[in-house]
Amino acid sequence: MSFSSRWVETPAHVTEAEPGLPQGFRAAGVACGLKLSGGLDLGLLVADEPGTTSAARFTRSGVLAAPVLLTQERCRLDALRVVVANAGNANAATGRRGVEDAARMQGGASMAAGIREDQVAVASTGVIGVPLDVDKVIKGILAARGELAPYGDDTFGEAIRTTDKFAKSAALDVALPSGTVRLTAQAKGAGMISPAFATMLCFVQTDAALAPETADLLLGVCVKRSFDRISVDGQLSTNDTAILMASGAGGVRVAPESADEVRFGEALDYLLRRLAMLIVRDGEGAKRVGRVVVHGGHEPHVVAAARAVAGSPLVKAALHGGDPNWGRIAQAVGQAVHDSAPLPVDVWIEDTQVCAKGAAIPYDERALAAAVAGEEVEYTVGLPGEGAEAEVFFSDLSHEYVTINAEYTT
Amino acid sequence: MSFSSRWVETPAHVTEAEPGLPQGFRAAGVACGLKLSGGLDLGLLVADEPGTTSAARFTRSGVLAAPVLLTQERCRLDALRVVVANAGNANAATGRRGVEDAARMQGGASMAAGIREDQVAVASTGVIGVPLDVDKVIKGILAARGELAPYGDDTFGEAIRTTDKFAKSAALDVALPSGTVRLTAQAKGAGMISPAFATMLCFVQTDAALAPETADLLLGVCVKRSFDRISVDGQLSTNDTAILMASGAGGVRVAPESADEVRFGEALDYLLRRLAMLIVRDGEGAKRVGRVVVHGGHEPHVVAAARAVAGSPLVKAALHGGDPNWGRIAQAVGQAVHDSAPLPVDVWIEDTQVCAKGAAIPYDERALAAAVAGEEVEYTVGLPGEGAEAEVFFSDLSHEYVTINAEYTT
Repeated sequence: MSFSSRWVETPAHVTEAEPGLPQGFRAAGVACGLKLSGGLDLGLLVADEPGTTSAARFTRSGVLAAPVLLTQERCRLDALRVVVANAGNANAATGRRGVEDAARMQGGASMAAGIREDQVAVASTGVIGVPLDVDKVIKGILAARGELAPYGDDTFGEAIRTTDKFAKSAALDVALPSGTVRLTAQAKGAGMISPAFATMLCFVQTDAALAPETADLLLGVCVKRSFDRISVDGQLSTNDTAILMASGAGGVRVAPESADEVRFGEALDYLLRRLAMLIVRDGEGAKRVGRVVVHGGHEPHVVAAARAVAGSPLVKAALHGGDPNWGRIAQAVGQAVHDSAPLPVDVWIEDTQVCAKGAAIPYDERALAAAVAGEEVEYTVGLPGEGAEAEVFFSDLSHEYVTINAEYTT
Repeated sequence: MSFSSRWVETPAHVTEAEPGLPQGFRAAGVACGLKLSGGLDLGLLVADEPGTTSAARFTRSGVLAAPVLLTQERCRLDALRVVVANAGNANAATGRRGVEDAARMQGGASMAAGIREDQVAVASTGVIGVPLDVDKVIKGILAARGELAPYGDDTFGEAIRTTDKFAKSAALDVALPSGTVRLTAQAKGAGMISPAFATMLCFVQTDAALAPETADLLLGVCVKRSFDRISVDGQLSTNDTAILMASGAGGVRVAPESADEVRFGEALDYLLRRLAMLIVRDGEGAKRVGRVVVHGGHEPHVVAAARAVAGSPLVKAALHGGDPNWGRIAQAVGQAVHDSAPLPVDVWIEDTQVCAKGAAIPYDERALAAAVAGEEVEYTVGLPGEGAEAEVFFSDLSHEYVTINAEYTT
């Protein structure tokens, strides 16, 4: 998939690759009958190398889906070798039975892959509060086993989609000082997306060799700069899961604190920001993408203000309408940083400053109207002080969002 | 206006009265040219009794509108005798000039009413970030002076409306042990409504005599149970103002800690909850109203969970679609009370329990579908423990909300 955004720059040592998983991985996606549409809904990903390392991040929701609970509690998160994931049912708010169903998924995938249960991660996405038809899932796992292939990232990515309009995947070649490695990922997410880190599923594979500590460090840093900085509707999901797996099958080792690590980190950062941007672009009903950057001297205020702007339905509706209604930017900042009036806020839309120290300033209305007519609109907010900065990417609020979410379960 | 809601019960000692202000008040609303529609947009309210007492509450936004800053800083909030309010321009994010413009409004109203400036409250509502045409406002004040009348609550209420589809006012007779008093109010609000106390304008008048401390106590308590418990779009406004004025002209004194105070408080509580409910019903694009009640043992969690449910665009869209998608209730609670999994949440929709201790339970889908088809839908959430409870009223998320807010300034 061709990708470009002025906000996500491709590092010089990263090049687009043909689809296909890195060495040491096979995957498949099949239809097991969970989606009413009959579409692919069960994905299986297997790392064949016994020495595969991994790292994972999960949603912080108080209402965790059963697969998240199970994977967090019963897996060796630094040595995952299998991912079994389904779409069409989140297996969330399903209680003890949900955990048992997730455990059956884990057991089925373990047997199918011939890999210990504690190395099998389970992920689900779809409707909340409906018991999972785990018999269908088990049949799907068996079918997927027969389809496992180095080029299975395609159907695997397809099988984790719900309201997503397009697949979110990437295959990259990354030139490290010690050699070239491959980096691939499959993500899903379009609704229930909020910056509290990763309200989505994302599975990342590489044939580089990473110590588990390195995988954990890099995934943590990159998730914070990507999935933790996007918002479709401000809603933290019950099921968010991001997993990085490194097979080492390519023979290139990324040593801690090496130039390889820096370069690999840059590539992973690029990859996750790119997928995060695709999730925002595919935000339910989204037509346009906004980026808000807030700078100032107080880190928590800067982050809170950026999230408030990105989460405001008023700002999002104005973005949808191509309306340079910057008063709503100021209002959202005032809400985030309350009890601090008078707050000397600066606001820019694209390159045009519209508000200085809390007061409107004259600007060319025509130029501004043109600036907010594009596919991507950038808002910059200045708070007092220096040294802290936060960005959040967000989708607009459209009629289609309402249509999608007023008619989801019925 | 006839009013009924199963959630707001009329106290036995409160009866509907004919429109008209309590003794000691006159008001008027005129068109001064701020609204492009030519509609009424400047309201003046005057209390003739020198001994009139008052109390006020304001938004906590860090980006306070100029009239809020001015009224907070330069007025005797316990002895307000004049309110001058305009619609069509919020005079917010207008800097030093905005404060000067608000001061000119205050000065103009002071001269028109013959009452000291520090007893003149100023309020504005409308678009943010556009300088106020204060010359029009001054002309409006002079015109309004000539129209001041005991029955002017009608046009005064009209003149503070923006996107409101209907007027939000009430005139009540309140039978206290010491005699009957009159209580009237005019409110506005449809968008930028969030529970952080009173994202709207509301002016309340009575001919009872209240000590300023009594007025402040009762207004504070009642605002917390009304305007602090509603959400249209989760957005805290820059301009929220609620003012209670007591002329004492009716001759009935409400003494502290008396039976009169209890009865008067009950009536004020009813009045503000009724107006708050009208604001939710008139929420931008709203077709239906939800009420979420959360109970449990931890007050901050209970309040946060209720607000998260009321603020969720997913819950609001489901309410709009008549979709009993209770998984989104559980998800929103999980977001509010994060890092607490597994959280044993109970969920009821109307009288039907759908989730027990975090797990779906069987229910009659037909009965539930019927239960969510009404104009008002009640959601109840149980968190662990006892002793704390919070409710929030909220509107649904409709196509019309998007239309209204994508096309506001342009």
